[in-house]
Formats: sequence, C-alpha cells, structure tokens
Amino acid sequence: MPLNSSWVSSANSAETDFPLNNLPYGVFSTDTLDARCGVAIGDMIFDMYAAEEQGIIDLTDEPLFDVPFWNELMEQGPAVWTALRNRLTDLLAEGSKDQALVEPLLVPMANATLHMPLVVSEFTDFYAGRHHATNVGTMFRGPENALPPNWLHIPIGYNGRASSVVVSGTDIRRPWGQLKSPDHDLPAFLPSRRFDLELEMGAIVGMASDGPITVDEADAAIFGYVLLNDWSARDIQAWEYQPLGPFQAKATATSISPWIVTKAALEPFRTSTPDREFELLDHLKDTGPMLYDIDLSVTLAPEGKTATTIAQTNYREMYYSSAQQLAHHSTSGCPMNVGDLLGSGTISGPTKSERGSLLELSWGGKEPVTLDTGDTRTFLEDDDRLTLTGHAKGDGYRVGFGTCSGTILAALDDPYKC
Amino acid sequence: MPLNSSWVSSANSAETDFPLNNLPYGVFSTDTLDARCGVAIGDMIFDMYAAEEQGIIDLTDEPLFDVPFWNELMEQGPAVWTALRNRLTDLLAEGSKDQALVEPLLVPMANATLHMPLVVSEFTDFYAGRHHATNVGTMFRGPENALPPNWLHIPIGYNGRASSVVVSGTDIRRPWGQLKSPDHDLPAFLPSRRFDLELEMGAIVGMASDGPITVDEADAAIFGYVLLNDWSARDIQAWEYQPLGPFQAKATATSISPWIVTKAALEPFRTSTPDREFELLDHLKDTGPMLYDIDLSVTLAPEGKTATTIAQTNYREMYYSSAQQLAHHSTSGCPMNVGDLLGSGTISGPTKSERGSLLELSWGGKEPVTLDTGDTRTFLEDDDRLTLTGHAKGDGYRVGFGTCSGTILAALDDPYKC
Repeated sequence: MPLNSSWVSSANSAETDFPLNNLPYGVFSTDTLDARCGVAIGDMIFDMYAAEEQGIIDLTDEPLFDVPFWNELMEQGPAVWTALRNRLTDLLAEGSKDQALVEPLLVPMANATLHMPLVVSEFTDFYAGRHHATNVGTMFRGPENALPPNWLHIPIGYNGRASSVVVSGTDIRRPWGQLKSPDHDLPAFLPSRRFDLELEMGAIVGMASDGPITVDEADAAIFGYVLLNDWSARDIQAWEYQPLGPFQAKATATSISPWIVTKAALEPFRTSTPDREFELLDHLKDTGPMLYDIDLSVTLAPEGKTATTIAQTNYREMYYSSAQQLAHHSTSGCPMNVGDLLGSGTISGPTKSERGSLLELSWGGKEPVTLDTGDTRTFLEDDDRLTLTGHAKGDGYRVGFGTCSGTILAALDDPYKC
Repeated sequence: MPLNSSWVSSANSAETDFPLNNLPYGVFSTDTLDARCGVAIGDMIFDMYAAEEQGIIDLTDEPLFDVPFWNELMEQGPAVWTALRNRLTDLLAEGSKDQALVEPLLVPMANATLHMPLVVSEFTDFYAGRHHATNVGTMFRGPENALPPNWLHIPIGYNGRASSVVVSGTDIRRPWGQLKSPDHDLPAFLPSRRFDLELEMGAIVGMASDGPITVDEADAAIFGYVLLNDWSARDIQAWEYQPLGPFQAKATATSISPWIVTKAALEPFRTSTPDREFELLDHLKDTGPMLYDIDLSVTLAPEGKTATTIAQTNYREMYYSSAQQLAHHSTSGCPMNVGDLLGSGTISGPTKSERGSLLELSWGGKEPVTLDTGDTRTFLEDDDRLTLTGHAKGDGYRVGFGTCSGTILAALDDPYKC
C-alpha cells in the first residue's frame, strides 16, 4: 500500500510517524485548550472537540468528543470506528474540499501536552514472547526447564493494576519494596536495586463481551494498539512471586505511548504467528494473520548524555497474538470491557541485541551492557531515560506509534515522609 | 456495648442482622423504585435518595444519593462518613423527633431487590489465612514446605478482575477452561470439574492514596467490609498458575454480600492478629487491633434440599489484617482508589470443620464431605446453592452482613454457541 497524500505537508514525509495512512487517536492540551481528543497528522493534531462542535465531525446523535478520552468512540462499535476513519481520511486527504474548514483546527504538536488517550478499565499483562520466556526460564530454572509445561498451550497472563498505567513522559519513581538478598536470612524493606523495563505492545479492547469469544471475535473486538513499558522491580518480584505471581513488583507504573494506532491503520502489516510444536486447542487456533510486522526499539540515555539503542526487535516475534490472548481471557466467562488494556508480554527476538528487558540483556545482572557513552548498565539507574519506539514500514511511509518514554527518579529517602 | 434501640421495632430483635448499631449501606430497587442507595434497619430499608430529595439528609452541597452506588459518599472522606452515621442514628433511634418524616421512606426488605452496593474500581485478592495456606501448601508441596518462605513476612496477594465481582444472589455459571488431567499428556478444553468456593471477607477502600501509606493510614482509609466468595476452578488453576499466578481460574465470578458494614459499626469488635514467629518489618507491624471478631459460616444446599453447614470459622483467624494488606499494596507507589476491593484470602480455622473451601474440606477431593441430606461433595455440583453468613456478637444484638449466596448453573453445552 502506498502513501496516502495529505494537504498537511508534514504528513507526506517518509520520516513522520503520522501520515494519512495512520491517523492515531490521542488526547492533548495546550496553554489555551483544555484536554481533549485529537488525531495526529504529520506534525499537527486535529482537534476533535472543535471539529464536533463545528459539525465537521457529526457521526452520532450524542457527542463523542465532549470528554478527554476515546472510550466513548470505542463504545459505538466498529461501524462508527470505520465511519470516523473514513471521514478523517476525506477531510485530511490531498484535494479535500474541506481543507479551509479543518485548517484552523490543527494545533502544532510541538505546542501540545499529551495525556492518557483512554480510561483504562482493567489491565492484564501476558507472558507470550517465546524468546523472553525461554531466556527468563533458563536463568531461573535452567535450559531444560525453561518453558513451564503449560506455556506452549496457553497464553500465560496475570491481572495487573489499571491505576498504575501512565502516559509516556510521566517520570517513574524507583519503588521501595520488600526483598531478600541471597546472602541474608531475612527480608528487608529497601528501594529496588534491580528496576527494569519490559518492551511490550498493548492491545485496547473496544467491544465488551460477557462470555467466551472466539479468536475471530476477539480480533474484531480490538480497537487499536499502543507501545507499552511494564516497569518491573526484579528483586521485589523474586521475593514475592511464589505462589500467586507478580504483585508489587509490577504496580509502580506501566507507561503507554500517547497515540492509539487503530487496527485499521495496521491492516496492511498483518503477519502470522510462528510455527508451533503443539497444535493449539481449537478455541485458540490461529484463523489468519493476527500479529503485525512492527519494528520496535529501546533506547537508554543516562542523565545529560546521548541515547544508546539497547534493543531492536519486532512484534512478529510473539508466540500468541493479542486476539488469542483476549479469546483466552474470556474462556472463564470473565466479562471484558471497553478500555481493557492487554500487555503482549515482553517482546524479545532470537539474538542478544533483540532482548526487550535488561534482565535478559545483562543476563540477570551478570553481563553488564555497555552504552555508546561508555557507561555500563545491569539494571536502570536514577535519571536514566528509557524510550520505546515502534513503526510498521509501508511503501514510502511508515505507521508509527510516537514514543513511549520515562525517566527514573531516585527513590524517596523515606517513603513514609513525603 | 448494648443494643441501641430504634423505633423500627424489627431492629430491636436479638436475631436481626441490622440493629441500629449496624446501619449498613446497600443499593436496592422495587417494582416502583429505580435502583438507589438504602440503609438496612431491621427488616426495612431507608431510602437515601428520597431522604436527600426531601432534605432529611443534607450533608453536602452536591447530592450524594443521585447515583445507585456508595462511591460518592466514600469520596467525601471520614468526616462526612461520621456525619452520615450520626444523622442516621438520630433519625432512627427510639424517641427520634423525625420518626414521622422517616417512616414513609422505609421500604420492606422483602419487597426489594438488592444490587451491587458500590462500583468496584479494582479487585485484589490476598492469601493471608495461615490455616488455609498451610492446608493448601501441605496438599501441594508436603507439610515441611507448606508455607512459602515469604509467607510469614508479607501478605501475599494478586490482582483479580473487578469486572467479575457480582452481588449475592447472582447465579454462577460453571466455567469452561483449559486443564490437564494427571493421566493425560496434553491439556483439553472442558468444563471445570473442581469448582469451589472461598470464604473471605472483603475490605472496601474509601480513601485514595498515591504512594506508600502506613498501617494506621490504611486502617483509616478502609470504609467498610463485606462477605466475599471467590469462586475458584481448582483444575483450571492447577494447570495455569505457574509461573504468574491464578488467572482464568478466578475470573468467572466473585460474589459479595449486598450490605457494606461500616468500619464504624465494627469498632466494638476489634481484635488482634495472632502471635508471630517472625517480627514483621516496621512498615507492616501491628499498631493496634485491626482484625474483627466476626463469626462466619458456609452452608451448601443441593437443589431442592435443605442446607448443611459445611464450615464455621471466624475472621480473627487471619494472619494479616486488611489494613496490613492495604499498606503492603501501597508500598510500590501503586495508586489506590475509592472503591478498590481487597479480598482477605480464604479464612480457615485450625480444625477440620473450620475450613473455608471444599479443596480443604475434602482434602483435595480425597475425603468427600457428607451433607445432612446424605449427599456427598468433593467439589460443587450443578444447582448447589452456597451461602455465606457472618455476624459480630454484641450484648443482646448482633452486627450482621446479611447473606452472600450463589447457585451453580450447569456449564454451557458449547460455550461458543450461546
């Protein structure tokens, strides 16, 4: 598929994340505008609140954009999702008859602050990257027991904490927690020393369900995708996670990129899950390509220094698609709601430079990573800035996610005196 | 503390769950009244929507009871919680000058349908009963490894699924799930055969926090308590829970009792946690009695037959209080919100008749429980009705929780054709 040209000239660059083919959904504010829904186009944001007020967007009887989140649009269902995308494409395409109406409603992205694009209903994180699970399992249980017996049959997941999901740019405070050093008999309450990132994609559920749904129904229910960094305190996790899984280790924060890239924008980039050793049970079987070919990278910049790319991989490395994860999530009858966020699990490729966490990159802290600046890292240090980027490559354009970044703040001196 | 007499005569019975000392908060509807907040008093419900409309309750500038849930009252904080309780006590006490005003706003409980009393923000379930953890650990890992190394130092918990919390009386559909029999090499997708109850208390967070809070602050932040049954598919859990904890096994439903018993009503019944082998770290230490002396029981009634009490225990058997659990939950900086629900973990006492799950009562299915009807049970069968009750005993009165019940419906023949 070629670039769709826009009269917004910056949208026609091969370097922009936001050509007319993308049209991702975010929430922004400026010095003069309260937080509101907007659509990225090149280096501009199209103000949805104003567009609806002025009747330029007029899809439903009740307003969709009188609130600073995209859940109301999602609630309308796929027919309205398509109608909005078609309308936006018409308005912003080269030669649009409505250019004069729309132009005053474009806000330079450089002047905007970006906010959470949705109200997250509930957050679930999966563990569905085979290379990641193999790496972590090898470190903890040895290569012969790396994957648990269930792993090749079921997308392993656990419930996370929606209240801890924040938008890119939010600083991340190093947490305190209960942890036990291998050389101590008793645990202590200390700041985490092994604070880490996890490179993931997040799928956003756009249609509710109230019973088991098929993989095809699940794919249809997904509204879009974001980049996701599930910040993880490995030392807290190691002490707490048996027998009921990660809890406070994952509750400090999870960052997401500010633009929801719609499933529609990603259609040209569908790709299949990898070959399987065990056939999946019928209700989880692939029914078509449900992963996406999205290049992903992670950079780390120590305070005041240049960033080094520490990992590069691709979303197609996942063993399970988000549609399979959502289908599995519904098997028990668990009600799924609009705004539910599903983390893919850490995405790592087969080679060392493709590992999506410092736990893997430094092999449990034993092999420090050397940055371009000459600094080394086993886990994150205070004031480090982490940035995830992702984009699917089209013919002369790319569909990008913007950035998902966060800077590590030092732990509080005394967490009970703040 | 003696009974506080009310002009509602049924509230003065030693047998009612709802004397003037209690005043629990629920949501009800009738054939003629839409769902609204109400307060239980004897066998009546005091209509809060009508009372506020008529100016009998007038605590805040903005209305509190124009919505069918108690979150708005909780948002006001403890001063308003106390003001409401004082006002209700004045209005309903023997000799109240306002009896004539209030009397027309009482609705017979027998005519009412009860609904969820709150919007659950997020749901966390703990594993903080020592007898339960020891029983389960002994079955799975042997008596010498029954408690994991962290158990005596930290209240182990995991995030549950808020969307699956339902009010007492909601039927519970036996789930399908992926499970593996010990005598098969590969898993299968089948209806759960080991579907179970978990007798728990639920604590409701009434004040938000955005960083670590102390045990005292956590105790102050708790608004009230409910009975809670965390329905659990043991066979799904056994296959899925390593390494990241229970997921679909716990996502079918969690039932809560319809009346929030306030912390204020439970004050006379505070009791301490048990003696500890290991001193807790400072941030989790007991600072006073934060458990409650609440008798709990579970009955099971096969379809069309009388109910048998299968377990009797007491909330004071917990090793960690809800305040300690909430304090731990906040250590990572995890934002806690009004309406968060914390399950205590299964409550079992030291003897066999005090075990709060069929997993323990039937010792993993090996020792069937015989009911008064002559039927036997290892796990729940279709059409079984489970009922939890709980009450704290005062001098001539009791503070009760009403009932938390659910009936098991047969699994769907084909979960993808409904």
